[in-house]
Amino acid sequence: MKTTGDQQLVKRINRSVLLRLLRRRSGLSRAQLAQESGLTKSTVSLLVRELIDEGWVTETGPAAAHGLGRPSTPLQLDGSRRAMIGVEIAVESLRVVGVSLTGEVLWSVEEALAEHEPAAVCRQVAQLVVRAHAALAARPVLVSGVGIGLPGAFDEASGTVRFAPNLGWRNVSFLPLITRALAEAGCPPVAVHVQNEADTAALSEYEFTDGDAKDSLIFVTCGVGVGAGIVLNDRLFTGLQGMAGEIGHSILQIDGPACSCGRRGCAETFFGARALGQLPDPARGGVFLGVVLQNLWTTFNPGALVVGGPSCERHPDIVRTARDTLDAYATSAGVAPPPVRPARYGLLASAVGAAALVLHHELRPMHAPSLIH
Amino acid sequence: MKTTGDQQLVKRINRSVLLRLLRRRSGLSRAQLAQESGLTKSTVSLLVRELIDEGWVTETGPAAAHGLGRPSTPLQLDGSRRAMIGVEIAVESLRVVGVSLTGEVLWSVEEALAEHEPAAVCRQVAQLVVRAHAALAARPVLVSGVGIGLPGAFDEASGTVRFAPNLGWRNVSFLPLITRALAEAGCPPVAVHVQNEADTAALSEYEFTDGDAKDSLIFVTCGVGVGAGIVLNDRLFTGLQGMAGEIGHSILQIDGPACSCGRRGCAETFFGARALGQLPDPARGGVFLGVVLQNLWTTFNPGALVVGGPSCERHPDIVRTARDTLDAYATSAGVAPPPVRPARYGLLASAVGAAALVLHHELRPMHAPSLIH
Ligand SMILES: [Zn+2]
Ligand SMILES: [Zn+2]
Repeated sequence: MKTTGDQQLVKRINRSVLLRLLRRRSGLSRAQLAQESGLTKSTVSLLVRELIDEGWVTETGPAAAHGLGRPSTPLQLDGSRRAMIGVEIAVESLRVVGVSLTGEVLWSVEEALAEHEPAAVCRQVAQLVVRAHAALAARPVLVSGVGIGLPGAFDEASGTVRFAPNLGWRNVSFLPLITRALAEAGCPPVAVHVQNEADTAALSEYEFTDGDAKDSLIFVTCGVGVGAGIVLNDRLFTGLQGMAGEIGHSILQIDGPACSCGRRGCAETFFGARALGQLPDPARGGVFLGVVLQNLWTTFNPGALVVGGPSCERHPDIVRTARDTLDAYATSAGVAPPPVRPARYGLLASAVGAAALVLHHELRPMHAPSLIH
Repeated sequence: MKTTGDQQLVKRINRSVLLRLLRRRSGLSRAQLAQESGLTKSTVSLLVRELIDEGWVTETGPAAAHGLGRPSTPLQLDGSRRAMIGVEIAVESLRVVGVSLTGEVLWSVEEALAEHEPAAVCRQVAQLVVRAHAALAARPVLVSGVGIGLPGAFDEASGTVRFAPNLGWRNVSFLPLITRALAEAGCPPVAVHVQNEADTAALSEYEFTDGDAKDSLIFVTCGVGVGAGIVLNDRLFTGLQGMAGEIGHSILQIDGPACSCGRRGCAETFFGARALGQLPDPARGGVFLGVVLQNLWTTFNPGALVVGGPSCERHPDIVRTARDTLDAYATSAGVAPPPVRPARYGLLASAVGAAALVLHHELRPMHAPSLIH
């Protein structure tokens, strides 16, 4: 009945369970981990030893002795020995960061995007990743992988960017391109994961928190485009063709203003960056953002709602107005308004979240493709 | 490293992988199952033997011999030896069905709901479940469990119905009540699962199809209330407090008509059953239903969109108008409209889906609570 594959899977699941327990509650001892996970103490001891050796976990602080037996050493995720590299390909710039397991930004760089042609973009990304890799290796820090967020719909099954209108990309076979560019730039072999920039932004809030998001979170990003990154049931949700979260093109007013997409009355026509730039009173756009938040709330009942993106930095009023609007709806309905928080990494959200994407995959081995079909 | 718990988990995962492969593609042989699952042939043979013995799988049809070696026998889910019982607690009636593994309704009954008081409702449900159980046992068919859909938000963690306004329930400790009522009515011990009626309706479309929904599906139910059942990443999604899918209270018009919830401009004020009953032209409500479908589509990019509920039976025009509206938005945006299909079980959707809820849990052992925290 047992195969090697089974054993490896069980081991990876158990390791991820321990890492996620420690992320939620730092300072647990081996005995507490055994109790919380349902694993035996000897299994926990073996796995913790491995995790310490590989730089995932550290034991620090004085060992507290409770009566007889082995002293109980507090364990925590190791924020100093492992990192993930995150890349945001924005329309006009590239941001690359090195982020520790605990969400600390260890290294970062931003550059103007030189060209929009896919192979050229990949070469520029690869050069920055190599610099990041060298800088992290010099600390020294182990690099777990590279995550990339970009302004388009990414199809994981085929590794293809289906459509990135602001880059002028359609059906770009991105994963082979970036893999080759990394190799040609001399980057050591690493796992590469790609997602839409709003999806990675959501992970910047989800993977490095201590559980306030429970198992769902919506990140609304407001810029030229308006989009949402969605984490549900503890996993990123991207839809059938990677196009979930296109809330910028949800209709807020029948026969409203014409949108760049061809429809009328889309959310972007009220609070996309272009609309905000033309309005005499941009805060009016915040009312519509508030409606979108209200509708996301009733539709998803999420653990957390986060708002970020360049428009929030440029027009902080719209976030205040949106929150007031959401509160007014909640008051009308006689319920407590859901908390809405600003993006904690600000304009680095997508890049930091791209790094978090690597961790997202590492910690979810039970969702290996062989099991979910 | 190995514990009994690990082995049982791996076995349950592997069994569920085989069952889901057979559901997607009926007639696979053991060799094909081994190839598709990545399990060894001997593991597959052992597991298939168990699944046949337990009434999950059947081998029928002539064994096809391909050259040398054992003949290749086609396997399929067994639609004759196992069933799930599904219950819908509606505002005015109870529906109870017995459904085979392949989605065939083997038995059904509908009764007026005698009282709204929780314990009385549970007693009436228990009596019908006992009748269903006896009828199924007489075929004979094994009963895998009982699923219940009800018009309110159910909190799985506590087993509590938080709020079911149309039944007048708030914070009802439902799971203990129904478990006790079943025991007192003489029902043999069975697993009991509970969810909101829109959620179970979604499963009636998701669990018994041959994969057209891919791994996501939204079921929009139109009655006095308007709600959505949501399956994402191959799992039901119900939100932080079990209140996801309350799309009836998403805002379609700022300062629109007053809604029963206290807000203004909610979807229900345009095409809830009460609004449709008062409109001179109910098909006008279909335009707003179309906007809701458009917004669900851009937000979720789901594998399938299904529309059902009593209003669709009473006003078939609104579904046609909604589809036309959705098509017009898609045409404006230069994209293909998503297919929208009617509920295949009609008014039995929630009850049949409650039966499917039992199967939903059986086939997802890797989401056992011990693993997802
Ligand atoms: Zn639009
Ligand atoms: Zn309402």
